[in-house]
Amino acid sequence: MNSKKDIIQPRKLKGFRDYNPRQMGLRRRITEAVWDVAAQAGFHGIATPALEYAETLLGAGGGDTDKEVYRFMDHGERMVALRFDLTVPFARYVAENQGELTFPFKKVQIGDVWRGEKPQKGRYREFCQADLDIVGVDSLEADVEILQCMMDALARVIPGPFTVRIGNRAVLSALVKTLLPQVDAEGERQLLIALDKLRKIGRDAVLKLMQEVPGAAAASCETLLTSMETVDQRGDTDMVAMARLLGGETPDWLRFRESMDLLRRLLQNTSCSVVLDMTITRGLNYYTGLVFETFIDALPGFGSISSGGRYNELVSRFSTMELPGVGGSVGVDRLLAALEELTPVEEGKRSGVFVAIATVDARDFAFEVAQSLRQQGVVTDIAVKPGKVGNQFKLADRLASRWVVVIGTDEKARGCVTLKDLSTGQEQKDVALGRLVELVR
Amino acid sequence: MNSKKDIIQPRKLKGFRDYNPRQMGLRRRITEAVWDVAAQAGFHGIATPALEYAETLLGAGGGDTDKEVYRFMDHGERMVALRFDLTVPFARYVAENQGELTFPFKKVQIGDVWRGEKPQKGRYREFCQADLDIVGVDSLEADVEILQCMMDALARVIPGPFTVRIGNRAVLSALVKTLLPQVDAEGERQLLIALDKLRKIGRDAVLKLMQEVPGAAAASCETLLTSMETVDQRGDTDMVAMARLLGGETPDWLRFRESMDLLRRLLQNTSCSVVLDMTITRGLNYYTGLVFETFIDALPGFGSISSGGRYNELVSRFSTMELPGVGGSVGVDRLLAALEELTPVEEGKRSGVFVAIATVDARDFAFEVAQSLRQQGVVTDIAVKPGKVGNQFKLADRLASRWVVVIGTDEKARGCVTLKDLSTGQEQKDVALGRLVELVR
Repeated sequence: MNSKKDIIQPRKLKGFRDYNPRQMGLRRRITEAVWDVAAQAGFHGIATPALEYAETLLGAGGGDTDKEVYRFMDHGERMVALRFDLTVPFARYVAENQGELTFPFKKVQIGDVWRGEKPQKGRYREFCQADLDIVGVDSLEADVEILQCMMDALARVIPGPFTVRIGNRAVLSALVKTLLPQVDAEGERQLLIALDKLRKIGRDAVLKLMQEVPGAAAASCETLLTSMETVDQRGDTDMVAMARLLGGETPDWLRFRESMDLLRRLLQNTSCSVVLDMTITRGLNYYTGLVFETFIDALPGFGSISSGGRYNELVSRFSTMELPGVGGSVGVDRLLAALEELTPVEEGKRSGVFVAIATVDARDFAFEVAQSLRQQGVVTDIAVKPGKVGNQFKLADRLASRWVVVIGTDEKARGCVTLKDLSTGQEQKDVALGRLVELVR
Repeated sequence: MNSKKDIIQPRKLKGFRDYNPRQMGLRRRITEAVWDVAAQAGFHGIATPALEYAETLLGAGGGDTDKEVYRFMDHGERMVALRFDLTVPFARYVAENQGELTFPFKKVQIGDVWRGEKPQKGRYREFCQADLDIVGVDSLEADVEILQCMMDALARVIPGPFTVRIGNRAVLSALVKTLLPQVDAEGERQLLIALDKLRKIGRDAVLKLMQEVPGAAAASCETLLTSMETVDQRGDTDMVAMARLLGGETPDWLRFRESMDLLRRLLQNTSCSVVLDMTITRGLNYYTGLVFETFIDALPGFGSISSGGRYNELVSRFSTMELPGVGGSVGVDRLLAALEELTPVEEGKRSGVFVAIATVDARDFAFEVAQSLRQQGVVTDIAVKPGKVGNQFKLADRLASRWVVVIGTDEKARGCVTLKDLSTGQEQKDVALGRLVELVR
């Protein structure tokens, strides 16, 4: 028993949140869709710990994300950290188990990650990611498989149309090398970081950043940016014009074109539109081919809810082995926030059964009826607070149950129940158990 | 690109582990069973953060579990900790949201927890718990509802019989007060802690510990212990003998007896046996009524895989409100370890389809066939590594696929496929798509 002064104020850490039942339902709808689609397509599920050696997650140096990472000394004087993504732990997993894995290795991984960033509306310090990856192969087929599975999972949960915008870093890099031959590797990196800001800071600001790169001629920067933005009849970046700038249909260009054609064909009858958009570059350095971001049509300005791309050297921190891969990630909490906006709370919508116990002597029969309904797939609650039937009805009403099954001495004796439909107020007596499940299903 | 000296050894922290695909499959089988049963019975899903204020988790003082808790100062100079169970965060959740919750509140919560204990075989520093609780009511009905749902979930995943052993702290406490009237509250606590060690240290050692409690007469300790162990014809603690010692059928005794009768009735046709066993006491101080532990019959000595009981004052740390509750928890990783022992790896068992792409021009048709099979519920992999069909067959074999669907120029032209059964070696040509799904399902 605590005295009053020992009472602790119940509060959460800044940037953290609980999931209430509605949010938890939506969250599970997302993660289960990713899991089911992945399992159906032969992806292998794995999980890794939340805590790892700080060195494992941050590299020998420490890394840029340093300040955002939850890092501390554990009881054994080890410097440990909470994972800030699922990719680095996956790389550690692959490096540690490479002898036992069959490559190409297709995996699905869903879990929380932690970043001590400044919390913003809809951005948390703990958030869930759902990742698909195929490692050990550099192929168009793997790129398409990832994209198709990601979009299939998203189509199962997003109500209404959405769009995946796909760019290609290999084609873009070739274009930079052709148009801006004076720019070195570091300069190319800076150009990509500038281009990635297009949606945030606008064309003029991006152009200004590009022109600050050593060796980047103003006119060529303009040409590069324009070529990426120029749109053909279909609404895609004009790939034909791009081939002209490249001096022909290069292997990277052809592979990109073919993967887009195949993806379009596979997704044509879904709620997912496919747009070829070379201005999608993704800032991160490690992408080497196809890159993508996904947007919900009904929520312009909401930002991307799923992204990814092709990378090389997944395990280079842990091994000299070269391992190319392609992956995609659903930002589960971002998508959850979107679904909360798109899915109205259904006021007054009733569902399920509530079993009311009218008399103590009929309790056993009431529990048996509830058990039987559950076994037949009907969501069934039962009065765990004994008392007046009127109060049990009030509780059923607050819980938004559709049906109340009343069971007392009389019902038990006759082996049947009284059924009330809370949405209409109608009551039926003497409902046999065999009929009950049909009525409430 | 890293030079050789920058390579970091890929390794996990001591006491932590990865889940490989087989383990992940078993883990999900457990958590999904708990979730599905709970949802069917009207439990509400919630989730809370992994990190909380250390004060929230440990109380103002610090608490006994202090040394085991991962605790550190975050970037904002807050002392924070990783949760070591789901119960304390749930108490914080209830206290923080009590105005919005409908009581009795039935909740399901599944998540990882962290304890820096000395790692042992099958015990990890990160492990998953799956908890059901009903708070806001002290009733036989709530006790039975928790037990029935827990056992129903366990019956879905445990291959073979298992046993829930149920004791009662209220009845035991009354017995202590009757037989050992000189023992005070602290002494009673010590007696319960001693009794809880019965399975670990044996009868004589327990009796010795009991007799060390101030005011505990040796003969009465012997009588208490014997009365708990004495077994009737059904294999239960002899409740009739216990009532005699108590001087009659007390309300707690009656409630216990009735809840056991009801539970037995509900679980009679399941793989779960119900045993009334007063030597189940659970060490923790906060239980006040029914307590239980669950054991797998085929694994004697393995220990309990699910436990729980009735408690009071869930939220007393955060509120002056009195909130009784009853809950149960599945030790997901303990049960997973048991299932790994009980479920042999199925060597040579083949399942699912692998789509091999014989010629590049037929790639689009191959992807369409894979998509169609997946949509019809068939687990279908596809060759993401182009190359010789022979190598694709080898991969399908390593992945233990049952069927290989071969698609090349010829198949595409005719709109059919070649199907090979890797379990028999038989091959069928010209299989129409309509027939394919029937053959491989």
